[in-house]
Amino acid sequence: MTQHEPLSRFGDRHLDVPRLSCQVGTPLADQPGIGHNRWHPDIPPAVAVDPGGEVILESAAYDDYQVHDDGGLEELRRIDLTRMHPLTGPVYVNGARPGDVLVAEVLGSEPLSGIAFSNILPGTPGLLGEIFPDGYRSTWYARGSIAESPQVPGVRIPAQPHPGTIGVAPSYELLRRWDERERPLYADGRAFAPDPRNALLRGLGEHAAREAARTQPPRENGGNLDINRLGPGARVYFPVFAEGALLSLGDHHLSAGDGECCFNAMEMDGRTWLRLHVIDDGMARHRITTPVVRPAPLVARFGADRYLGFNGFCFDEREQGYQDATFAAREAMLRAVDYLMGLGFSGEQAYVILSVAPVELHISCIVTIPNPTVTLYLPIDIFDRDILPGAK
Amino acid sequence: MTQHEPLSRFGDRHLDVPRLSCQVGTPLADQPGIGHNRWHPDIPPAVAVDPGGEVILESAAYDDYQVHDDGGLEELRRIDLTRMHPLTGPVYVNGARPGDVLVAEVLGSEPLSGIAFSNILPGTPGLLGEIFPDGYRSTWYARGSIAESPQVPGVRIPAQPHPGTIGVAPSYELLRRWDERERPLYADGRAFAPDPRNALLRGLGEHAAREAARTQPPRENGGNLDINRLGPGARVYFPVFAEGALLSLGDHHLSAGDGECCFNAMEMDGRTWLRLHVIDDGMARHRITTPVVRPAPLVARFGADRYLGFNGFCFDEREQGYQDATFAAREAMLRAVDYLMGLGFSGEQAYVILSVAPVELHISCIVTIPNPTVTLYLPIDIFDRDILPGAK
Amino acid sequence: MTQHEPLSRFGDRHLDVPRLSCQVGTPLADQPGIGHNRWHPDIPPAVAVDPGGEVILESAAYDDYQVHDDGGLEELRRIDLTRMHPLTGPVYVNGARPGDVLVAEVLGSEPLSGIAFSNILPGTPGLLGEIFPDGYRSTWYARGSIAESPQVPGVRIPAQPHPGTIGVAPSYELLRRWDERERPLYADGRAFAPDPRNALLRGLGEHAAREAARTQPPRENGGNLDINRLGPGARVYFPVFAEGALLSLGDHHLSAGDGECCFNAMEMDGRTWLRLHVIDDGMARHRITTPVVRPAPLVARFGADRYLGFNGFCFDEREQGYQDATFAAREAMLRAVDYLMGLGFSGEQAYVILSVAPVELHISCIVTIPNPTVTLYLPIDIFDRDILPGAK
Amino acid sequence: MTQHEPLSRFGDRHLDVPRLSCQVGTPLADQPGIGHNRWHPDIPPAVAVDPGGEVILESAAYDDYQVHDDGGLEELRRIDLTRMHPLTGPVYVNGARPGDVLVAEVLGSEPLSGIAFSNILPGTPGLLGEIFPDGYRSTWYARGSIAESPQVPGVRIPAQPHPGTIGVAPSYELLRRWDERERPLYADGRAFAPDPRNALLRGLGEHAAREAARTQPPRENGGNLDINRLGPGARVYFPVFAEGALLSLGDHHLSAGDGECCFNAMEMDGRTWLRLHVIDDGMARHRITTPVVRPAPLVARFGADRYLGFNGFCFDEREQGYQDATFAAREAMLRAVDYLMGLGFSGEQAYVILSVAPVELHISCIVTIPNPTVTLYLPIDIFDRDILPGAK
Repeated sequence: MTQHEPLSRFGDRHLDVPRLSCQVGTPLADQPGIGHNRWHPDIPPAVAVDPGGEVILESAAYDDYQVHDDGGLEELRRIDLTRMHPLTGPVYVNGARPGDVLVAEVLGSEPLSGIAFSNILPGTPGLLGEIFPDGYRSTWYARGSIAESPQVPGVRIPAQPHPGTIGVAPSYELLRRWDERERPLYADGRAFAPDPRNALLRGLGEHAAREAARTQPPRENGGNLDINRLGPGARVYFPVFAEGALLSLGDHHLSAGDGECCFNAMEMDGRTWLRLHVIDDGMARHRITTPVVRPAPLVARFGADRYLGFNGFCFDEREQGYQDATFAAREAMLRAVDYLMGLGFSGEQAYVILSVAPVELHISCIVTIPNPTVTLYLPIDIFDRDILPGAK
Repeated sequence: MTQHEPLSRFGDRHLDVPRLSCQVGTPLADQPGIGHNRWHPDIPPAVAVDPGGEVILESAAYDDYQVHDDGGLEELRRIDLTRMHPLTGPVYVNGARPGDVLVAEVLGSEPLSGIAFSNILPGTPGLLGEIFPDGYRSTWYARGSIAESPQVPGVRIPAQPHPGTIGVAPSYELLRRWDERERPLYADGRAFAPDPRNALLRGLGEHAAREAARTQPPRENGGNLDINRLGPGARVYFPVFAEGALLSLGDHHLSAGDGECCFNAMEMDGRTWLRLHVIDDGMARHRITTPVVRPAPLVARFGADRYLGFNGFCFDEREQGYQDATFAAREAMLRAVDYLMGLGFSGEQAYVILSVAPVELHISCIVTIPNPTVTLYLPIDIFDRDILPGAK
Repeated sequence: MTQHEPLSRFGDRHLDVPRLSCQVGTPLADQPGIGHNRWHPDIPPAVAVDPGGEVILESAAYDDYQVHDDGGLEELRRIDLTRMHPLTGPVYVNGARPGDVLVAEVLGSEPLSGIAFSNILPGTPGLLGEIFPDGYRSTWYARGSIAESPQVPGVRIPAQPHPGTIGVAPSYELLRRWDERERPLYADGRAFAPDPRNALLRGLGEHAAREAARTQPPRENGGNLDINRLGPGARVYFPVFAEGALLSLGDHHLSAGDGECCFNAMEMDGRTWLRLHVIDDGMARHRITTPVVRPAPLVARFGADRYLGFNGFCFDEREQGYQDATFAAREAMLRAVDYLMGLGFSGEQAYVILSVAPVELHISCIVTIPNPTVTLYLPIDIFDRDILPGAK
Repeated sequence: MTQHEPLSRFGDRHLDVPRLSCQVGTPLADQPGIGHNRWHPDIPPAVAVDPGGEVILESAAYDDYQVHDDGGLEELRRIDLTRMHPLTGPVYVNGARPGDVLVAEVLGSEPLSGIAFSNILPGTPGLLGEIFPDGYRSTWYARGSIAESPQVPGVRIPAQPHPGTIGVAPSYELLRRWDERERPLYADGRAFAPDPRNALLRGLGEHAAREAARTQPPRENGGNLDINRLGPGARVYFPVFAEGALLSLGDHHLSAGDGECCFNAMEMDGRTWLRLHVIDDGMARHRITTPVVRPAPLVARFGADRYLGFNGFCFDEREQGYQDATFAAREAMLRAVDYLMGLGFSGEQAYVILSVAPVELHISCIVTIPNPTVTLYLPIDIFDRDILPGAK
């Protein structure tokens, strides 16, 4: 067995399932047959399945193998986000038509190389970027189903692999609407404008590359939902906008916290095994216009009281917001970072822990004007010592 | 036994515990000894306990018995929010000093009258108020530990009683800072200005009433946190700002959803049994500046996959926001309301269900500019039929 | 409020529900209207409800108020088991007929006095009675929803109240079969023979008292099932053997471990609120011949890995059994008792902990001849210190 | 990639871990270097690791590749149980000594071929063998993390892979004691006598083969514990009886129910990744004389009320037992089989479902003489339709 041969927990039985294989370490540009990195209605399908059929989709991590185990901070500065996200697909589901609902059932999800990165990128340092602007690297190894990092000792995180990005093709109309909607934000970098550089569209030409949507934000078609409960057994109900539905996925995580605050979860190359169903006319019948998810049954079952909940409101020393859940979420995170620093973690370690551990970020209340309550629930059993207040 | 005699699941054993009893049906103004409805450092304690000691605190619902079982919509229009929230306390904890952390351990929480209201108030109709401006009433009855409402048939919600508001007294400095901070929002009603009307401060005079803080928003001292996991076994770690900590609570809920979107959870009169501990110098030792919560171990344990997750992003047909979790939360709720209406519920019923059922409102991702993903997880086992897509 | 007045968490709303009230401290003989302590088809109903209707049933603990808080070991020696169990009922369900299934939905369950006993009786000392023959007393107090005992410091157990005994009336035929079946065991005390002493049958005479079945064992009609998951939200599906089904219950527990090894769970007087339904011809339709239970949704949700599992097989130093799960269970318990003694608990304390804490006693494997594996899962979060191997 | 190449979800990172690889399809006799199929103190270690070190152990299923996908019932009749269980190891843990405790931490566990069998063997048909004597075959496929069988349609079981057998070497003294203890049962086949036929002991000679213990029953050293909670994240604390502890494992299950009633769980070839620790003098310090387990945190989290509990007591139409939990377990299973047959499953299908689904088999009560209550909790969410009583 060579070092980089795609491996699988799935055993032989996956051999009868169509698979789009990713060569570990190889950028999408060098294996363009398996996928694309923009959303566009015309991207030709890479594989077709019947309703009820299955497919295995492998992908590089979101960074398209730009990050290496020994790359240092310099590498993080050079990351080219136009290569984001290498998605695998599209999968054409025979008979699926606009107006239907596509049910993507996640039968399995797992690492490819078993190496994941959770980095703070100097250029896009996430929600607390003002505080942690300088970049930071952590590498996480899947030791079986337990994730550990030499940079963050004392923490063990149960692996809960899942695709961070999963979506269907937009219609032309939808693509146009996205551009119109996000255009005002392009100028100051608050949204990613279409950009043909490094665009890979399975053979589509320059014209498509200029209009294809970037994959950064989640939208009506799903995409970069970053929902951490899409592991084995989960289902996503997608509105269908194109013939064949044209589903693609990638951006696998070994584990992710709600919020994915530092811009990186545990980012990894991975593989997801899907079964696909179609609900005829499901959009109207079930009033589904954005993806609906049924979360995974297989989870790390922490005790209901094995969490510490840190609360943020929408004020700080300088500012009072109004019903601003994002502000409150940031404050909750800062409270948690502070607490962890009091235990001896560095700020960067704390920030990464909140981004990769299965934290829950709840909007506990949103109507108590002017301050909502956002509660960040940190699982305490990922630490190898007692972190409760009052503990020694 | 008379109709309104305070009752208790706690059994005789509570008789050795100091208790501030609430007369069911009686507004706080007519039983002013048990509590207050503003935050102020000078409110005299109603009871004192030693560290490790216990106390039982009973309160009216947030509305101070303005709402009645047969009151109609007109009653909702007349609700006077200056009577909000009737809190019971303060409890002086001997030896607690500013800089300490007060640990409030919830030993028990339960209904008083067993009647709860979840109404849409025409004046403050909550997060989807533009869509549901007209008011709506639902009454929920605790049939044992199951809550049911004649207005929302087909739904059974496990009772998870808890105090929605729990907090400690602010310092003068903190009180001043609150006023300064929120003052810019007073003019257009985005925050509640201090208001002496109906202020009850356990004997403090007009001056205090004019400067005392309103109880609507949660702040550094806790207060109206509306965290639905503060039932039996939960703990709250409060920063202490005043001698004796001066803890008060009220605003009981029979059940509440994350977000409490319609402005009402299942609002009820209730009783909470606390044990109180002090961590000396805990604020500095544990870097605690806002309340930290340890959630309750006793819960309705739904299956991990017995939820439907509705996703919202920060755009709609008219608007594109930027990293706006509040907008995304509203959108997620609208998706859920739509879905429930497709099942035959009215919009108002759906809105109330999301406000009172143990829904989880997760900020799944916040760094995928410009759109965060907010996921509203609706438990499917509260419905007496199968609500999954594709079900008959 | 007097010391012994029946109290309730249920609030006023229970006032519209028919209730059989138990006077705290009063033996059944002095309030014979509410119940009985034998099974017999002819016991006249104490209350009737329609299908879909509700009823609240209160009862003394299994000992019929023979045990007192300050009674000492002598009291335990004098316990008269012919007074066991004071059951409340029967409830006649209109229209229920033999062959139907009665669905008893537990809407609520709670303590009456809030005092519970877990004693080792010198006469009936339970599964490890050879080792602990001398008797032992522990009293548990419901401090809200947390149970604590001065005799077992360092342990806090979430209250999960439920009726230990719940059943329907047998037919004559069934009563006869029971007697025939158990008769061979009467002689050496391995089963309780019918015994008219202290028999209370709501007015039935001596003849019935001589043939009425004792309530100790569970049988086809349910009865002393001692299933600890029958708290709020649970349902029991009973085969119906008599007109009206004639349901009764009692023997409330504040908490109980699987096995109830020391013969006592946390035994208390309590109250259970039921809703009753009938499935016509349910016995044949669903092939139900013994009670089927749907466990309660409201539970203490421990983490999946917050248990220590002690294993027993069916051998010890003297003996090798064959596929004997009872032997293996006893061995598993002995391993757990040893472990707890190593932590400083006395043997009696350990034995009681296993009987009252929500331990799970699993037959992990039964086909690995000659030794089954029985695993006793002890929740580790009931202890106020870390009890894991290797911990300080 | 060839059909039978060992695959792994573990990714590249496992490449630095010592591994004993099993060739899929190859009996242990043809790859004798990796393991053994008897317990004996002298079996030479196959690999050595330091405390804190890791190892990956692969094994055939319990049947040593005697069962094939297309083998028919005849194959089941011919199964030679002297080839049971092919175990991989032993692993010598440097420094572990008798009296220590070996902590085996399961980092990962997964299928090799992805094919599992749950068969009823005509010769050893399990707990209900009198009723199902004729043999039956079901093959289960790991479709990702979901197990399905063409023989049992309508059922989907979440994969929870784990080693069914895991143990350490006995001392000579222990080996002798086992033989002495079980000897009386050899004659009538109630225990498996030592048998040199097909014994594989990594080179040990005939003498050892004649005295080596069979692997069928669990004993003080662990072995065939068949505990279904030993998946990723679980820990087993073993008493150490030999220098180096000498741990071996095998008998992987894709899923297993408590009881493993039909003699087969979902039996598969598999791979388990361990980390090994030593607690010096742990046996005395922690009073550990049989394995203690800490169950896995990663589980299929069903709702607390998403089970049906079938109850058995120790009587049937012909017989009354006394405190016989095995009898009661059999009765509980019969009730469940009946119920499932009422839904249209065949008896054999039902029997297999109870053996492979994550059912919980609780000894609910053991002191209610003469009848214990054993409750078999069947998860209802493994069925693709509503199986509750009263459902259509």
